[in-house]
Amino acid sequence: MLVDLVIRGGTVVTVGNMGIADIGVSNGKIVQIGGDLQGRREIDVRGKYVFPGGIDVHVHLSSPRTPGPGVETWVDDFQSGSNAAIVGGITTLGNMTFQRQDETLRDALKRDLAAAERDAGIDYILHPVLTDPSAEALAQIPELASEGHTSLKIYLVRDNFDARVDDYTRAMQLAAQSGSLTLAHCEDGGLIRSVYRDLVARGMAAPRYWPDARPDYTESVATERAIGMTRATKAPIYVVHLSSAAALASCSRARAEGLPVYVETRPLYLYLTREVFDQPDSAKYVGAPPLREQKDLRALWNGLLSGAIQCVCSDHAPWTLRQKLDPALDVRTARQGVADLETLMPMLFSEGVRKGRISLSRFVELTSTNAAKLFGMYPQKGTIAVGSDADIIVWDRDAHRTIDGASMLSKAGYSVYDGWEVIGWPLYTISRGEVIFDNGKITAQRGRGQLVRRGKTMML
Amino acid sequence: MLVDLVIRGGTVVTVGNMGIADIGVSNGKIVQIGGDLQGRREIDVRGKYVFPGGIDVHVHLSSPRTPGPGVETWVDDFQSGSNAAIVGGITTLGNMTFQRQDETLRDALKRDLAAAERDAGIDYILHPVLTDPSAEALAQIPELASEGHTSLKIYLVRDNFDARVDDYTRAMQLAAQSGSLTLAHCEDGGLIRSVYRDLVARGMAAPRYWPDARPDYTESVATERAIGMTRATKAPIYVVHLSSAAALASCSRARAEGLPVYVETRPLYLYLTREVFDQPDSAKYVGAPPLREQKDLRALWNGLLSGAIQCVCSDHAPWTLRQKLDPALDVRTARQGVADLETLMPMLFSEGVRKGRISLSRFVELTSTNAAKLFGMYPQKGTIAVGSDADIIVWDRDAHRTIDGASMLSKAGYSVYDGWEVIGWPLYTISRGEVIFDNGKITAQRGRGQLVRRGKTMML
Amino acid sequence: MLVDLVIRGGTVVTVGNMGIADIGVSNGKIVQIGGDLQGRREIDVRGKYVFPGGIDVHVHLSSPRTPGPGVETWVDDFQSGSNAAIVGGITTLGNMTFQRQDETLRDALKRDLAAAERDAGIDYILHPVLTDPSAEALAQIPELASEGHTSLKIYLVRDNFDARVDDYTRAMQLAAQSGSLTLAHCEDGGLIRSVYRDLVARGMAAPRYWPDARPDYTESVATERAIGMTRATKAPIYVVHLSSAAALASCSRARAEGLPVYVETRPLYLYLTREVFDQPDSAKYVGAPPLREQKDLRALWNGLLSGAIQCVCSDHAPWTLRQKLDPALDVRTARQGVADLETLMPMLFSEGVRKGRISLSRFVELTSTNAAKLFGMYPQKGTIAVGSDADIIVWDRDAHRTIDGASMLSKAGYSVYDGWEVIGWPLYTISRGEVIFDNGKITAQRGRGQLVRRGKTMML
Amino acid sequence: MLVDLVIRGGTVVTVGNMGIADIGVSNGKIVQIGGDLQGRREIDVRGKYVFPGGIDVHVHLSSPRTPGPGVETWVDDFQSGSNAAIVGGITTLGNMTFQRQDETLRDALKRDLAAAERDAGIDYILHPVLTDPSAEALAQIPELASEGHTSLKIYLVRDNFDARVDDYTRAMQLAAQSGSLTLAHCEDGGLIRSVYRDLVARGMAAPRYWPDARPDYTESVATERAIGMTRATKAPIYVVHLSSAAALASCSRARAEGLPVYVETRPLYLYLTREVFDQPDSAKYVGAPPLREQKDLRALWNGLLSGAIQCVCSDHAPWTLRQKLDPALDVRTARQGVADLETLMPMLFSEGVRKGRISLSRFVELTSTNAAKLFGMYPQKGTIAVGSDADIIVWDRDAHRTIDGASMLSKAGYSVYDGWEVIGWPLYTISRGEVIFDNGKITAQRGRGQLVRRGKTMML
Repeated sequence: MLVDLVIRGGTVVTVGNMGIADIGVSNGKIVQIGGDLQGRREIDVRGKYVFPGGIDVHVHLSSPRTPGPGVETWVDDFQSGSNAAIVGGITTLGNMTFQRQDETLRDALKRDLAAAERDAGIDYILHPVLTDPSAEALAQIPELASEGHTSLKIYLVRDNFDARVDDYTRAMQLAAQSGSLTLAHCEDGGLIRSVYRDLVARGMAAPRYWPDARPDYTESVATERAIGMTRATKAPIYVVHLSSAAALASCSRARAEGLPVYVETRPLYLYLTREVFDQPDSAKYVGAPPLREQKDLRALWNGLLSGAIQCVCSDHAPWTLRQKLDPALDVRTARQGVADLETLMPMLFSEGVRKGRISLSRFVELTSTNAAKLFGMYPQKGTIAVGSDADIIVWDRDAHRTIDGASMLSKAGYSVYDGWEVIGWPLYTISRGEVIFDNGKITAQRGRGQLVRRGKTMML
Repeated sequence: MLVDLVIRGGTVVTVGNMGIADIGVSNGKIVQIGGDLQGRREIDVRGKYVFPGGIDVHVHLSSPRTPGPGVETWVDDFQSGSNAAIVGGITTLGNMTFQRQDETLRDALKRDLAAAERDAGIDYILHPVLTDPSAEALAQIPELASEGHTSLKIYLVRDNFDARVDDYTRAMQLAAQSGSLTLAHCEDGGLIRSVYRDLVARGMAAPRYWPDARPDYTESVATERAIGMTRATKAPIYVVHLSSAAALASCSRARAEGLPVYVETRPLYLYLTREVFDQPDSAKYVGAPPLREQKDLRALWNGLLSGAIQCVCSDHAPWTLRQKLDPALDVRTARQGVADLETLMPMLFSEGVRKGRISLSRFVELTSTNAAKLFGMYPQKGTIAVGSDADIIVWDRDAHRTIDGASMLSKAGYSVYDGWEVIGWPLYTISRGEVIFDNGKITAQRGRGQLVRRGKTMML
Repeated sequence: MLVDLVIRGGTVVTVGNMGIADIGVSNGKIVQIGGDLQGRREIDVRGKYVFPGGIDVHVHLSSPRTPGPGVETWVDDFQSGSNAAIVGGITTLGNMTFQRQDETLRDALKRDLAAAERDAGIDYILHPVLTDPSAEALAQIPELASEGHTSLKIYLVRDNFDARVDDYTRAMQLAAQSGSLTLAHCEDGGLIRSVYRDLVARGMAAPRYWPDARPDYTESVATERAIGMTRATKAPIYVVHLSSAAALASCSRARAEGLPVYVETRPLYLYLTREVFDQPDSAKYVGAPPLREQKDLRALWNGLLSGAIQCVCSDHAPWTLRQKLDPALDVRTARQGVADLETLMPMLFSEGVRKGRISLSRFVELTSTNAAKLFGMYPQKGTIAVGSDADIIVWDRDAHRTIDGASMLSKAGYSVYDGWEVIGWPLYTISRGEVIFDNGKITAQRGRGQLVRRGKTMML
Repeated sequence: MLVDLVIRGGTVVTVGNMGIADIGVSNGKIVQIGGDLQGRREIDVRGKYVFPGGIDVHVHLSSPRTPGPGVETWVDDFQSGSNAAIVGGITTLGNMTFQRQDETLRDALKRDLAAAERDAGIDYILHPVLTDPSAEALAQIPELASEGHTSLKIYLVRDNFDARVDDYTRAMQLAAQSGSLTLAHCEDGGLIRSVYRDLVARGMAAPRYWPDARPDYTESVATERAIGMTRATKAPIYVVHLSSAAALASCSRARAEGLPVYVETRPLYLYLTREVFDQPDSAKYVGAPPLREQKDLRALWNGLLSGAIQCVCSDHAPWTLRQKLDPALDVRTARQGVADLETLMPMLFSEGVRKGRISLSRFVELTSTNAAKLFGMYPQKGTIAVGSDADIIVWDRDAHRTIDGASMLSKAGYSVYDGWEVIGWPLYTISRGEVIFDNGKITAQRGRGQLVRRGKTMML
């Protein structure tokens, strides 16, 4: 059969397959696997892995939640963010779309959608972030779900959360009834404020005390509470950027009871521990929750191995090094977040697959398939199968690289992994059948990305 | 030696002793155990148990926290409450002293102290209840502790708790620094409101749905949070009226980590389960947290046995049956609380000791010694030892009674155990050497009770 | 492309895919998915599910482990067993191959291989069962692994286990070094004998006391021990027919520590509880471990959902009803095991997928893909992918059946599910491209099955 | 009253009391506390603590279980052992009495009783050690219990255990029916042999690898099994010398289910961790189970604090340094055990009470009262109360000492704590009213000790 593109001779790896096969793509879709194929374009990928494109459902490429001093936004937009993603093997982004004070959920989505339509080089979804669970906002949840926005982000750490738990719970319930999945940032704001106050009183407010400022129990207590919201509503919950053994234990207990609790971790926690905060430039590692201890790091790897954790996403929230190291900042005002879009998949491949900690199948599951299922994009996204979007990455399993944030595409200009040696890197990134990254060169046209109209969240 | 009172020939049981001995009392103190004793008064208690007087640190004999419709108070005051206590073997009460809106902690204590001085027939302590953690209130915590009020009660379930977690945490920290113990009512108000809303929407707001209205996770989530406050402050915490296996598991995990977390349960949970809410008069069982399931009941008994639970207190909060069964009430407005002062010790002796579930030693520990230690009264109270207050009960281990609330001394006029057969009942109650209950007759003079000036909380 | 067989228009479901696609098969392999396909034979399966063929790695179709009175074997051989499997959607069998007293592991494999080559209608693997960890047997473990027998079965419940734990541990270590997976039957023989003795003394030896005779702790203690063997050796372990919440908790704790512990459950435990032992013919349910309680059943379903359990296999060990109900038998002599090959997949589909307890993806994982990976057959078996064996079942998701063991193909002649209504049943079973079950008719030639030469066990 | 001895002015501390009181003793019993007292002898102990005499129920002062090369016994007998005990504040010993090959349980007791009657300076109990659960031995268990030997020791680590679990379980059941408590050494012999074999193969058999040779899971697996025996029989079990967080977690889970599982730890584990095995003379620390890690040490202290551990006993098993450091020994043949009788109480007081980790009350409970209750000696022993034996120690809370094994009374001639500074040491030791240790001088006559005729084990 004559098709638009043939990806020939690679070792195709999905969660449920691993073998050499040719892939035929036409009109952006995978139309044939194996058999006779002729392509208008063909790429020979013998000896390479062929993975479903990465899906990073947790990035920040628009208006920030917690401005530092003055009005400022994260330094990447959909354009630079897409570029970093493309180079790193990501073909679908999930952006946190915050309401501004005068906006409804719908307004915010509209605003971000406009920006993404203008700038995004790859496909994307938008997560409406509920910052004010007003009656109007609650009413929009089912509407937006019916329009394909089947997710909702809440922050247990927000100042207004504690006083309005029941409104947030109602939001979560409405989301579930609409087939939407609720993402939850689980930290206990009240406990954190208590700790801050003590640290400030003891003269320990500098960013280097960041790990002390948000101890693991401030995470696990909030996680227990989020699970309580699931118990109250039967609504599924997706705990974002889980960082500690304690919070993971809470989620695992809940899952063992059959509750629909899903866990995402952030790459940072898999490679770094709080010891880096002894370094002079430690502020560059600030992100919430903070880095933990070796026992936590081990627990997270064990969770990837056992299936207790379902997704690894970047929580890409980029700032420049100058912004991060601003000496005026302390634990209360520090700019939270790090750039990790470009490094997400290579680091996990190198440290996980190459070092024998996780299988290739799990790698695909953690970086693509599970996210596609949970966020209503499967099997359009998240796999390599006939009928699916041809979102494919070709992976050179033997490429050696040294991480160098300065030469990467995020405007952050540095990486928390600067100097790390990794093995394995994308060779081609293909989005809906278009080769948009080709041996080191991005060819994606600005704005070519599309919003993925999503269905309901799916059981794993 | 000639003494005021000799208690002759009983089997004295304390946590660390069990044997026949004469006890000599003078000037309200135990002055001699064993040896030659002659008393101005002697009581022959051969064949009876002699226990330290019961210490019930959790009663409500003054202005209520949560008024039902209109302004109303619990139906017992220090006079009727003392009488119920005396008959039931209790010689020290711990009253929850709530601030009224225009009162400081100190004002409230002064008010309750006046009432107790006027009415109380036995000794008492007052727990200031922090309902508004204002700067003024926080400032009073160390002052009051230095005056002997070494405890502080907080309600995680209060409407203002969630928004002010850090102020409450600060209060707990100040309490700990002053040697005070923080009592915590652990239920998550936000989650409960969520559940209420759903029940109301489904037409299930009647009191018979009370157990559904405050499910176990609303307790365990708040318990985890209270433990988080202990982690943040190192302050010891005393979890009141713990009712569920889930919350007990949280506390036991914390204790296994060495945290100063103490657990009180309420007698109700040891004998009754939610099935009683199928009865037509189920509103009479309403109290927070609600009755749970068999598995919870079993977990609590196991906790008494293993030492995971340290105290059993009544949470005496009396209403008349008419008040409880008021058909206008629903889960949101129901009058919470039951009368249990008179029945606390007999029920635990009968169901616990007589049925072989706990030892005599544990019975004394749970009803007296542990509370004395935790609340800074030991060894003045909580034991039978030379130098201690002669707060002693003589227990007829073979007395058969049928519980009949109508004939008991609480003004509630009913008991949740009406009709239960118990074996074992106090024969004499002695307070500071004075026999104030003598074979069925109360002889305590109104107002003879004294405030116990307390020291710091003590490790068990 | 012209191929031998086209499976046209079905909804192909694998762990990593779900969508409508045509499948082309030639020479027993899947050669093309999607695209233009013409087949020498074509089957139209529109509206049906197309699954990877079931892999049941736990069956007994040869000489028994525990003969009842006299010399006797289970009533199915590879021929009748294959037929039951084929009708039930299974295309690969894993047989427990026991050494007879005078045989080496290799002898036993040779014997069973001869029988399978003669009789088996579908492909198979053979698990050497180590009943005597002699030096000779240990020496054969790596040899057999290198020949493609990459598994080893041990019985912690065997009389000779306890005295020779270290030899069994050594065997497990040798297996791991050879890439083999150790299957472990986890029950504590010594504790079971203790319980038996008591039951016999109390006149409670009848089969109806079977659940009392092997309580859950006899399983969980042995499971802890098997996990200890894994700790000592780093060897992966596959816990067969796990039945209880307690044993599952042990495995989950181990998995959370990153240990290579895998869990199989037996279908029986998902549908039946010990209450059926009150029935007069309760002996028909006898199998080890026994049926448990509702809480265990729930824990197992939750384990399927969360991923804590990786495989569901039948442990098909068939006896006739007359044999099972032999009145001469008691708990010590009862014939253990039930027939479940034909019902394995339909019951799990009907009770699991149709009732919304597990996803289609999990169904495939539990019945096929995970077993293929763990037992070194992936991706030859366990998926639908180009290059894989064309072991495929076409599933009529709406077929209604009433289970009737008398009309099924196992010689057992009854089913423990007799009378259950199920929805969903295989329509076609295809083995290496050959349609061997076609609308109710088996067309497999006796002996057409082949031994699968296996590679090393693979991480999930 | 005129009495034999008055202990005047000390601060008497029991589990249920703490206060200044005079104690009057006559005929070896406490006859009066407080009141007027005149003594034929009086000792002024103002400013000192007065504790119940220590009860160390786990010592080895007779024929050894595991001879090293040749026939040899531990180096202390009842005489030197008593002396070490007296100086260290112990007034009652519990000796492990092993059957020799040709002895019955009764024979062994008779033999040890003769030795103790000849040599012991303080009171004692003897634990028959069941090394061969023959019919004859089982028959003696109830007989011996009726004669006051209400305990039985079993070793799960013994070579013959695994093959005879059911006989040992039967023994435990018979013990329970007779009111006896079963002490269990919980290590899994089979797993340990597996680990030994590996270490030997890797050239790591030297004593310095001792902690590697018996990893924590070899303890926790056996502990789970012992708990299984309790489940099977309802018999209480007393887990001796528990060393690891894992095994403690097993026991705590069991206790939370209401099972009669009691835990003893050995002092060693509270102060030392496996790091000491890096020292050249590390063989001196060899004892089973081995030293563990910081996390285990912390878990044990937390267990003392929370009540999860009930007793601290020495497991005094003395060898000379020359014997311990014999270069011919390896992990298989090393002489297990250390001398700790004299240091048991001072170390726990200094490291526990003085450092604020446990209360005085808990100190008494752990070193005396709980053991008295569990082993059927309460209230004759284990407390300071009228009617109890006058086994009393007067403790100088401020005495500073440096541990120096060479000058101590055990023939071991060294201490594992050599060089540690401790605060607090016994000033007087009084046994049945006789002052047998008086300001540094032992005055006990050889052979004055008596066998304690015991009653049934008692709930705590």
